[in-house]
Amino acid sequence: MDEFSLIQRYFTPLGLTKDRGVVEGIGDDCAVLDLPQGHQLVVSIDTLVQGTHFLSDAPAYDLAWRLLGASVSDLAAMGAEPRWLTLALTLPSVDEVWLSHFSEGLRAASLAYNVSLIGGDTTRGPLTLTAQVHGLVEAGRGLLRKGAKAGDIICVTGTLGDSRGGLETLLKSASDNEDVSYLRQRFYRPTPRVSTGRLIRGFASACIDLSDGLLGDIRHIAAASGVGVQIDSARLPISTPLKRYVGEEQARQWALSGGEDFELCFTLDQTHWEALQQQRPDWPVEITAIGQITSSNEVQVRFDDTWQASNVQGFNHFTE
Amino acid sequence: MDEFSLIQRYFTPLGLTKDRGVVEGIGDDCAVLDLPQGHQLVVSIDTLVQGTHFLSDAPAYDLAWRLLGASVSDLAAMGAEPRWLTLALTLPSVDEVWLSHFSEGLRAASLAYNVSLIGGDTTRGPLTLTAQVHGLVEAGRGLLRKGAKAGDIICVTGTLGDSRGGLETLLKSASDNEDVSYLRQRFYRPTPRVSTGRLIRGFASACIDLSDGLLGDIRHIAAASGVGVQIDSARLPISTPLKRYVGEEQARQWALSGGEDFELCFTLDQTHWEALQQQRPDWPVEITAIGQITSSNEVQVRFDDTWQASNVQGFNHFTE
Repeated sequence: MDEFSLIQRYFTPLGLTKDRGVVEGIGDDCAVLDLPQGHQLVVSIDTLVQGTHFLSDAPAYDLAWRLLGASVSDLAAMGAEPRWLTLALTLPSVDEVWLSHFSEGLRAASLAYNVSLIGGDTTRGPLTLTAQVHGLVEAGRGLLRKGAKAGDIICVTGTLGDSRGGLETLLKSASDNEDVSYLRQRFYRPTPRVSTGRLIRGFASACIDLSDGLLGDIRHIAAASGVGVQIDSARLPISTPLKRYVGEEQARQWALSGGEDFELCFTLDQTHWEALQQQRPDWPVEITAIGQITSSNEVQVRFDDTWQASNVQGFNHFTE
Repeated sequence: MDEFSLIQRYFTPLGLTKDRGVVEGIGDDCAVLDLPQGHQLVVSIDTLVQGTHFLSDAPAYDLAWRLLGASVSDLAAMGAEPRWLTLALTLPSVDEVWLSHFSEGLRAASLAYNVSLIGGDTTRGPLTLTAQVHGLVEAGRGLLRKGAKAGDIICVTGTLGDSRGGLETLLKSASDNEDVSYLRQRFYRPTPRVSTGRLIRGFASACIDLSDGLLGDIRHIAAASGVGVQIDSARLPISTPLKRYVGEEQARQWALSGGEDFELCFTLDQTHWEALQQQRPDWPVEITAIGQITSSNEVQVRFDDTWQASNVQGFNHFTE
C-alpha cells in the first residue's frame, strides 16, 4: 500500500468537521484554516517514541488516545479550546491491523477531545508518533506559567500519581483487577482538563499541565514567575486504587514525582480561590488546594512535621 | 544535558522575532500567536527519517536546511507567506557537535526562509526530524491543487532533476567539481519558491510543489481538478550541470520523475500566461511553459515524435 492509499483509507475519514474553520483539510500541500476574530492561535507539538515513551507491545488504539491526550492537555493548560490536529507518523511497515486500530483510537480520541485531523505526513522508519494540536483562546486571556504571586494558593485537578501506578502495573505485568484496570486506564487514557482550563482562565494567575511530575513541573511556574513554592504532601489528592496498589507512602512519592498525570496545576489569589469554591457544583473535576506560593526561591515540601527544600532552579527531581 | 538545558542552549535563541505575532514563543506549554485580520492560517507538517530520507553521514547543518526548505515549499505552493516553525526532534543521544551544527543550520535557514521557531519537543530515539510550518494567506486567495481547466498552460519554476542528480553524486561518492557541487547544493538546500507563489496567486488556476517528481505530483493537480495533462519533454528546463553530469537522456528522465526539486508546478489560462510574461523582468526565478491541461483523463508525455500515456489515477510513476 502506498502513502496515498494509506492516508485515504485510514486518515481522510477523520477530517471530521467542515464547520470549524477548516477551509481545506487533508489532501492539498497545506491545510487552510479560518480563525474567528478576537482570538489567538495556541499550538503545541509532542512526540512519542517506541522504547522511550511506550513499550513495544502497547496497543495501537491506546497509543492514539495517549498521544492526543498528552497534546490536548497542553491546550488545557493555556485555557484554550481544542480545534485542529496534524499528525506525523513514522511506521516501520504498513501493518494494516496496527493502522486500523490506531485509526479507530484516533477517531474516538478526536471526538472525545474535540479536535479535527487536518493534515499529516506518513514516513517509513522506527515507530515514532508526533502530534501538533492547535487551539483558540480569547485574545490576551491565555493562561501562562508566569504570573504566580507570593500568597497565591496552589491547586491541582483530579488525583496524582495514578499514571505512574498504571505504568508499574504494566512493567510488573500485574494481573488484572479493578484497581489495576483503573490505573492502566489512567496511564493510557489521559483526561486533559480542558473544561477546567476554560473555567479558571478568569481566575488563575498561572497554570501548567503535569507531564513531568508535580515537583518537576511546578518549578516551571516558580522559575517563570520568580517565586517559591510550599507544598503540603498530606494534602495531595491520591486515588484509593493507587493507595491500595502500592501503599500510602509510595503513592505519595508518585504523586510528587511520577509523570504524565496530565492534570492541571494552577495558582490563584485567596479572593479568587473563594470565588472558585463557590462554583464547586459546576467544577468538571475535583480541585484540591495543596500549598501556596512564597517569596523565597525554594521548593519546599512538608512531610508530616518536617520540611524538605530544594532550589527552584534545580532541574533534577527533588527526591534525587 | 537534560531537555531544558538543551532547548535553552540550542533552540531558544532561534525564537527570532517578537514582532511577527508571537505573543508567547518557546518556554510555556504552548506558543500563543496573533493572526492579522483578513488572513487564513496555512499549515503543513513534514518528517525526515535517517535511513529513509537521508544517509547516516548527512551533515546536520544541511539537514536543517533541507527540513525547513521542504516544509516552506508547501507554503510556497499555497501562495502563502511563511511565519512560524515548530520542531519535533528525536535524537539517539545528546551529541553537542551535531546539535550545534544543526542549530546553526536552523538559524541560517530560518532567516533565509523567514520563519521563527516558536516551539518544539525533544525526545530520545532513532534520529527523526519533524517540522511544522505555519504561514498566512489573504483570505480566499490560497492556491490549491484543484482549479486547473482544459486549455490551461502548465508551467514550472527553475530547473528539474537537479536534486536527484545531487543524490546520485552522494550515492556514487563522486569527487567534487563545480557541477557536483552545484547538484549537491540543489539536493541539500531547497529553494522554496515563496516569492513566485506570492506573485502567481492572482494568476494561477492550480499549483503544487514538486516533491515526488513532476509526473507523480502533476497527477494530483489532474486528479483534484478532474482534467488530463500533456507535457512536452523537450521543453523541460534542465540545468547544464545536470546534463553534463549524467547526459541529456538521463537528465530528462530525472526531470520527469526525480523527486525533491521543490520547484513549483502551476497552471493558468492563456490570458493570464500572457500577463505573467509581461512581468518577466520581475520574476524571482525563470518560469517555463512545459505543456497544457486537457479534457482527457490521461497524463501524456511527448518524447520527440512519440506520445506515451498513462491514466491520471495511476499511483505509480509513469516510467514504471
